[in-house]
Amino acid sequence: MTYQEIVAKAKTNIGPYCKVCPECNGIACKGMIPGPGGKGTGLGFIRNYQELKKIRLVMDTVYQPTPVSTRSTLFGKEFSLPVFAAPVGAVGLHYSNAYDDLTYSAAVLDGCKAAGTAAFTGDGVKDEVYKGTIDAIKAIGGHGIPTIKPWSLAEVVTKARMAEDAGAFAFAMDIDAAGLVVLAMQGKPVSPMPVETLAKIVASVKIPFILKGVMTPAGALKALEAGARGIIVSNHGGRVLDETPSTIEVLSDIVDVVGDRINILIDGGFRTGLDVFKALALGADGVMIGRPFTWSVYGGGAEGVTLYMNRVQAELAEAMLMTGAATIDAIDATKIM
Amino acid sequence: MTYQEIVAKAKTNIGPYCKVCPECNGIACKGMIPGPGGKGTGLGFIRNYQELKKIRLVMDTVYQPTPVSTRSTLFGKEFSLPVFAAPVGAVGLHYSNAYDDLTYSAAVLDGCKAAGTAAFTGDGVKDEVYKGTIDAIKAIGGHGIPTIKPWSLAEVVTKARMAEDAGAFAFAMDIDAAGLVVLAMQGKPVSPMPVETLAKIVASVKIPFILKGVMTPAGALKALEAGARGIIVSNHGGRVLDETPSTIEVLSDIVDVVGDRINILIDGGFRTGLDVFKALALGADGVMIGRPFTWSVYGGGAEGVTLYMNRVQAELAEAMLMTGAATIDAIDATKIM
Amino acid sequence: MTYQEIVAKAKTNIGPYCKVCPECNGIACKGMIPGPGGKGTGLGFIRNYQELKKIRLVMDTVYQPTPVSTRSTLFGKEFSLPVFAAPVGAVGLHYSNAYDDLTYSAAVLDGCKAAGTAAFTGDGVKDEVYKGTIDAIKAIGGHGIPTIKPWSLAEVVTKARMAEDAGAFAFAMDIDAAGLVVLAMQGKPVSPMPVETLAKIVASVKIPFILKGVMTPAGALKALEAGARGIIVSNHGGRVLDETPSTIEVLSDIVDVVGDRINILIDGGFRTGLDVFKALALGADGVMIGRPFTWSVYGGGAEGVTLYMNRVQAELAEAMLMTGAATIDAIDATKIM
Amino acid sequence: MTYQEIVAKAKTNIGPYCKVCPECNGIACKGMIPGPGGKGTGLGFIRNYQELKKIRLVMDTVYQPTPVSTRSTLFGKEFSLPVFAAPVGAVGLHYSNAYDDLTYSAAVLDGCKAAGTAAFTGDGVKDEVYKGTIDAIKAIGGHGIPTIKPWSLAEVVTKARMAEDAGAFAFAMDIDAAGLVVLAMQGKPVSPMPVETLAKIVASVKIPFILKGVMTPAGALKALEAGARGIIVSNHGGRVLDETPSTIEVLSDIVDVVGDRINILIDGGFRTGLDVFKALALGADGVMIGRPFTWSVYGGGAEGVTLYMNRVQAELAEAMLMTGAATIDAIDATKIM
Repeated sequence: MTYQEIVAKAKTNIGPYCKVCPECNGIACKGMIPGPGGKGTGLGFIRNYQELKKIRLVMDTVYQPTPVSTRSTLFGKEFSLPVFAAPVGAVGLHYSNAYDDLTYSAAVLDGCKAAGTAAFTGDGVKDEVYKGTIDAIKAIGGHGIPTIKPWSLAEVVTKARMAEDAGAFAFAMDIDAAGLVVLAMQGKPVSPMPVETLAKIVASVKIPFILKGVMTPAGALKALEAGARGIIVSNHGGRVLDETPSTIEVLSDIVDVVGDRINILIDGGFRTGLDVFKALALGADGVMIGRPFTWSVYGGGAEGVTLYMNRVQAELAEAMLMTGAATIDAIDATKIM
Repeated sequence: MTYQEIVAKAKTNIGPYCKVCPECNGIACKGMIPGPGGKGTGLGFIRNYQELKKIRLVMDTVYQPTPVSTRSTLFGKEFSLPVFAAPVGAVGLHYSNAYDDLTYSAAVLDGCKAAGTAAFTGDGVKDEVYKGTIDAIKAIGGHGIPTIKPWSLAEVVTKARMAEDAGAFAFAMDIDAAGLVVLAMQGKPVSPMPVETLAKIVASVKIPFILKGVMTPAGALKALEAGARGIIVSNHGGRVLDETPSTIEVLSDIVDVVGDRINILIDGGFRTGLDVFKALALGADGVMIGRPFTWSVYGGGAEGVTLYMNRVQAELAEAMLMTGAATIDAIDATKIM
Repeated sequence: MTYQEIVAKAKTNIGPYCKVCPECNGIACKGMIPGPGGKGTGLGFIRNYQELKKIRLVMDTVYQPTPVSTRSTLFGKEFSLPVFAAPVGAVGLHYSNAYDDLTYSAAVLDGCKAAGTAAFTGDGVKDEVYKGTIDAIKAIGGHGIPTIKPWSLAEVVTKARMAEDAGAFAFAMDIDAAGLVVLAMQGKPVSPMPVETLAKIVASVKIPFILKGVMTPAGALKALEAGARGIIVSNHGGRVLDETPSTIEVLSDIVDVVGDRINILIDGGFRTGLDVFKALALGADGVMIGRPFTWSVYGGGAEGVTLYMNRVQAELAEAMLMTGAATIDAIDATKIM
Repeated sequence: MTYQEIVAKAKTNIGPYCKVCPECNGIACKGMIPGPGGKGTGLGFIRNYQELKKIRLVMDTVYQPTPVSTRSTLFGKEFSLPVFAAPVGAVGLHYSNAYDDLTYSAAVLDGCKAAGTAAFTGDGVKDEVYKGTIDAIKAIGGHGIPTIKPWSLAEVVTKARMAEDAGAFAFAMDIDAAGLVVLAMQGKPVSPMPVETLAKIVASVKIPFILKGVMTPAGALKALEAGARGIIVSNHGGRVLDETPSTIEVLSDIVDVVGDRINILIDGGFRTGLDVFKALALGADGVMIGRPFTWSVYGGGAEGVTLYMNRVQAELAEAMLMTGAATIDAIDATKIM
C-alpha cells in the first residue's frame, strides 16, 4: 500500500462532501456541515492552513550529524513521535457510511498504536458510541485517549471513570463543543463550564485530564488552575465557531503564560511533518492531526493510518536533519522564521 | 420556510443585476448601478466586506454560563437585538419589479417588527414614496425610522414633521446622498449641509435625529454639535462615492472621539451575527444590514425578513456564548482580535 | 456619443494587442510590446494601477457647500482641470493603423483643447512625426506641449526651438527614454543626460521646460538645478524599464524635497477623476493620462477625447463635493487615507 | 536562433513534467519530483520567484553617461557578467531523455564559455557522471566548476582532486543535498558535515572551495571558518526541503555578517538581468541561474545557452543604464527599493 493508493481509494470511499483535494485547505468544502468544512465562511479552517504555510524552516546542514530521533513522551508514556490522531465524530454523516464511529475509532486506534503513537477518540449523542470507543481502547491496553463532550458534570464524571477503568492513560474534554445546538436538539445539551466544574472532573479520576479547545492565554491559565495536565490549542477545525483566529497564531502567547506547567498540544490544519515541526518550534509539546486520518482510514483502514503516521514521522525527521535538530527538544524558535 | 428556500426564491425573483451570490461581497456586481453594486470599481462595497472578514473572534468557553441575551435599547425602546434593516431605495430599478418601494418597505417594516427590531425606510424623488412609507410606519404604531434625503431645508423639515406625526420613534437623513446627480437631474437637488442647517432640522421636531453617512471623527463631532442623537457610520454601500475606506476600519476612531455621547450605528457588508458582534466589540451601539434584506423580501416577504433577522440573532447569541459575553454590553474589544 | 459607445468602437478599431479591458490594469497585456503592455513582467504598469487603488477617499458632506471648481493653472495658463493627455508614440504599431502619430496627435490636441485642457504630443525616429505635431500645435495657437526624446543635444535644441516658434506654451523631454535600444537600432541613439546638458536645453528657449521620467527625489532636485520649470513623475507606463516602483508611491518623497519650487505632474495608471484627486492630495500639481486617450481617439476621435476629459472632470468634481474641497488647492492629504 | 525559437523547441523537447510556462514561477510544477518542481507544497521554489518580484529598481537617467560594463571577476578570473549556470542533475529524469547529464553538461559548459561566463556542473550516484563532467571541463581548459555531493569525506576529497587535476578553477559542494534519502537508497549516503570536515576538504586541494546551500548567517560564518572561498545562498530550488525562506530574503543578513571576507553567490528564481541586478544591489557577488538553462539546452543546445546568457547580460546592462550604474561595483542598495 502506498500513500497514493490510499488517497485514490479515499476518493472512492468518501462522499459526497469531501473532495480529497490535492491541498486539504478548507476552501473547496467551506461551510459544508455535514461534510468536512469549516462552519459558515469556513475561515476558521482555511486560516489554520494558511497561517501554518507562512512559517518557514531555517535550513542549515553544516554540523556534525548524529542520528535523528523523533521520540517523545506524554504523561510518562513514550511515543515514536509527538503526533496524535484527533477525535473525529459522526464520520458516517460527514464522510460516508463506509465507516461508522466505532469502525473508524478502531482503525485509527490500531493504526496509531502500530505506528508508535496514539489516537484520541470521540463521543456521541448515543451512549453506544462512547461505550464502543472505550471498549476499543481497553482492547488495545488503554492505548488511546477518549474525548468527552461537555455534557452535565455527572455524565462527564461517569465517562471519565469509564475511561479510567478501561485503562486509558489520559482523557480529554472538548469544551469548545459547548455551543453545538445540534446536541441540545437531540436531548443532550452541552455548555461552557467554569474552573470549579473542571476541577471536579479532574478530581474524579486519577488519570490526566486534557482540556481541548483553548484559544487564549486566559483559557490556558484556567485549565491550569483547574488541575488539567494538558491543553489542546484548537478551534475545533473551524467547526464550532466561524471566524476564529488560526491556532498557530495564538500558540506563542499561550506558551508564554503557561510555559512548562502544562502539556500543550495543538491541532488545526496540520498535514505534514514540517507543519508538526513548526508547532514544536513555537513551544507545543505535541500535535494532533484530524482530517488526513479520515482519508487514511477510508483509503486504507488501520494500515493506512500507520502508513500516514510513518510518513509524517519521516517528514519530521527530514526537517530535523535539514535544520540540525537531532531530538524533539532541540526544535526551538531559532529553527523557524 | 427555510433560509435556503428564501435564497432560492430570491434568485428567481431578483434580476438581472444581482446574482444572489454565495458570498454577497460586491465582486460579481461591481460597478452595477442600476443593480446592487458599488459605484465605479466597486471597492467601496467590496472593502466593507473584506475588512470585516479580517476581524477574528476570541473563543473561550471556560466560564460559568448564564443565559445569553441579545436584547438592547435605542432611544429608550427595547429591541430583541441591536440590528436594523437599512433603507434601500428604488428596489424596482435595482432588484426587479416584483416589489416597489412601498411594498418593499411594508415587508421589511412588518418583518423586522415581528422579529423584535425595526426597519429604516427610504425616500424618493416622487412624494408618494416618502408619504407611503410614513403611512406604513404609522400603521404599525411608529415602529420604523424614515430616512430623508438631504433636500432643501424646508422639505427635510416638512418630512421630519410627517415622521413625528406618524409616531416614528426617530428619523434619519442620509447626508452622504449629497452627491447624487441623478436626483438633481430629476428636479430634486440634494447637497451637503453645515452644522447650522442640521441643527435646524434637529430643532424642528422632538423625535431623535440620526445622521447617516458619517465616515470621520470630524463628521461625528459635527453631528454631535448639531444635536443629533445618533450617527450611522456608512459609506452608503459604496454607492455614492467610489473608493472610500470600509466602514469597519473607521469605526474605532469615531468611537474614540464621541464615545457614549451619541448613539453609533454602522452599516456596510454586514451579513451575519458574527459580523454584528465585531462592530459591537469595536464600540458600535447597533448595526444596520442592507442587501441581505432585499434577498429576504424578494425571497420570502415579511416572513423572510423575520426569518433572516432571527437567524442573525441566533448567530449573534452563539458568538456571545462561545466568547463568554452574556449581554450586549459585555461584548468588548477583548472579544476580538 | 456616449462613453460606452467610445469603448465599443475602440474595441473594433484597436487590435490585436490591446483588449480594451473592463479595467485597464496592465494584466492582460503584460509584456506586450508592440502593444500597450508594460515591459517584461509588466509590473511597472500593473503596480501603477494597483498602488493607486490602495488610496481611499475621506468622505464628509457635513459642510456649507459652495460651487466646486476644478480650474487650475500651469505656467500662467488656465485650464478647466489639471489633467493632460500624455504623449503616446507609434500608435499605428501599438494600437492599429486606424490612426498614425499625426492623426492621433491632431485628435488628442483638438479634443483636449475643446475640453479646456491640453495634450502632450510625442516624438519619432522620422523627422516628419515631430514636424507634424509641431504644425498641429501651431494650428491651434500653441495649445499643446511637444515631448522630445533625449537625442543629441543639438537635435533637442533644434526641436525645442521649433516648439517655441510654433507658439507652444511649454515643451518636455522624456529623459527615461534613454534606454530605448530600438531607437539606436534605427540610427537615432538616445542617452542619459547630466544636469549641465539639461541646463543648456533650458537656456536654448524661453518657454518652460518639463523633464519627464523622474522617479526619485534626487532626480527632481537635478531637474530643479538644471532650471526645469516642471517634472513629470513617470515610469513611462512601465515601458522603458521593467520592475520599477509605481509612480504614486514615490510621489510624496519627491514633493517633500522640491515642494513648490517646481511644477510636479505625474502619470501612470490614472483612469478616473478619483485617481486624479489622489495625486493632487499627495501634492501633485497635475496629472497626465495616457492609455485611456488611445481608447478615446480610436473610439471617438477628438470628440471622444473631449467626452472622456469631461467625464474625468465630472468625477473629480464629485470627489471634491463628497470630501468638501471646493477648489483644487483645497485637495490635501487630509482628504485621503 | 531567437529566444522565442528556443522556448518553442524546449516545449517540444521537454516533457512531461515541465510545461515551459510563460512565467517560470514554480506554480504549475509544484511538488513535481521527478520534474522541475519544488518539493511538497512547492513553496521553496515559488517564494524564491515571488520575493524577487517584490524588489523594485530605482530609475534615474539624469547623469553623464559612460559606457556600461557588466564585467566582473571571481577567484581572479574575469567574466563578461557575474552570472553562472547552476548545476542541474538527472536531467533525463526531470526534463526528458533528449539529454542526459553528460550531454547536458557539455552544452551548458560550452555555451557559458562562449558567452564569457562559466557553468557549474553536477554530480551523480554513478561514477561516470562526475567523471564525464570533469572530462568536459578539462576539454575546455578548466572553464567550469564541478559540484560534488556531500558523500563520505574520502569520496569528496577524491573528487576534489579530480577537479583540480582537470584544471577547474574552483569546485563546489552542495551541502544541502545532505537530506536526499534517494541517494542513500541507491547505496550512496550523504550527510551534513561539521566545519572540521569542510576544512579537510578545503585543505585537500589548492583550488578554491565554494559551499552551496547556505541559508543563514551562522552557516556563512561556518563556511568562512572552514576556509571556503565562496558560498552559494541557495535552497536548492526548493528541492531538498519544503517551506524554506526564499534566498533573496536571507541574503542581506548573510552579507552583513561575512561582508567581503568570502565570495557570495546566490540562486533561486532568477530569470532576468533585472533579477541579477537586485541580488548584486543587496550585496551578492554573483548569481546562478538553474531552470532557464534547461530550457536553453533543450531548446537550443550550447548555442541556446549562449543566447540566453547574452540576453541576461543585455537586460543587466539596460538596468544599469537606467539606474546610473556603469559598473558592477556601482550597483548598490540605493539602486533598489
